[in-house]
Amino acid sequence: MLSLLGLEYELIPVNFLEREHKLQNFLELNPFGQLPVLMEGDLVIRDSQAILVYLARRTGGEDWFPLEAESMGKVIQWLSTAANEIQHGPASARLHFVFSQAMDINHVQQKADIILKVLDQHLRSRNWMELERPTIADIACYPYIELAQEGEVSLQNYPNLVAWITRIKQLKGYTSMLSGRSLVKS
Amino acid sequence: MLSLLGLEYELIPVNFLEREHKLQNFLELNPFGQLPVLMEGDLVIRDSQAILVYLARRTGGEDWFPLEAESMGKVIQWLSTAANEIQHGPASARLHFVFSQAMDINHVQQKADIILKVLDQHLRSRNWMELERPTIADIACYPYIELAQEGEVSLQNYPNLVAWITRIKQLKGYTSMLSGRSLVKS
Repeated sequence: MLSLLGLEYELIPVNFLEREHKLQNFLELNPFGQLPVLMEGDLVIRDSQAILVYLARRTGGEDWFPLEAESMGKVIQWLSTAANEIQHGPASARLHFVFSQAMDINHVQQKADIILKVLDQHLRSRNWMELERPTIADIACYPYIELAQEGEVSLQNYPNLVAWITRIKQLKGYTSMLSGRSLVKS
Repeated sequence: MLSLLGLEYELIPVNFLEREHKLQNFLELNPFGQLPVLMEGDLVIRDSQAILVYLARRTGGEDWFPLEAESMGKVIQWLSTAANEIQHGPASARLHFVFSQAMDINHVQQKADIILKVLDQHLRSRNWMELERPTIADIACYPYIELAQEGEVSLQNYPNLVAWITRIKQLKGYTSMLSGRSLVKS
């Protein structure tokens, strides 16, 4: 999002495998012990969705996050999907295979397929999640869908999601995410 | 939220035990098969957090949901907490005891305690989640915390949460939620 907005930023790595996000000095920034955290001066915003909203609002325009009630409500729906179903589906499956987290992986992969199917159906008649343009609804859902295969969740049955991923990668300012798997293996 | 805003509405019951929310005519409203859904004319908004944002914006003011970037970001943090940690902690535990859903209940109750402890600490020096006034951050988090005991999750170690619940119940327009347990038993 920072890159899509053309903002300058410094990326400070936190070692997830060493559980640096559960150490006291990190918990003072974010008592939830979760990544990422955005810091700007004295301001600290935890939570990926809140960071997207903050950044979109901060740039001043309404391109990525509209202010009109109906449009805003429609976009917010997908922030909850990112926080809930995507987090507990494809993102969790990835934690299992990339970071060796114990879980009922079959159940998690099933939950991943349920949400991916809903998203694929939603995109059958749309290029973007809402409002016929890229918004933070797309950016919120994107990362752990693009990385689903690191959780051994295949996207081959979801052609609309695959096409949507391609569209996102073509956005001006798009930058690829660091792959957790490549980080672990390097 | 509808009541706090003084809006008129009609409540249409959906039988959760009979799985009416998974029937085709409901899935056409909300492909996620989840409650609640807000309908207003042709508009359909799924997801509790999106409904809160829509309603708060629709009333036009900024009392419940501010538009300034930093304030908005801070409020949104708690919508994600409601969608993720509260949903998968106290709300899930309640599904087990009230609606007999199968789950690893000890694990879920532990997750509930982790989030309740974070929230209680957060409220140690605050009356409200953010901005020193009631916002949709409070309303998003409230229902399944107030109902935690229906999931056999005690609030007795969380005095700041108990005091916050009391404050919310004193808000003008507050109306109590239907208790799932009383619905099942009646």
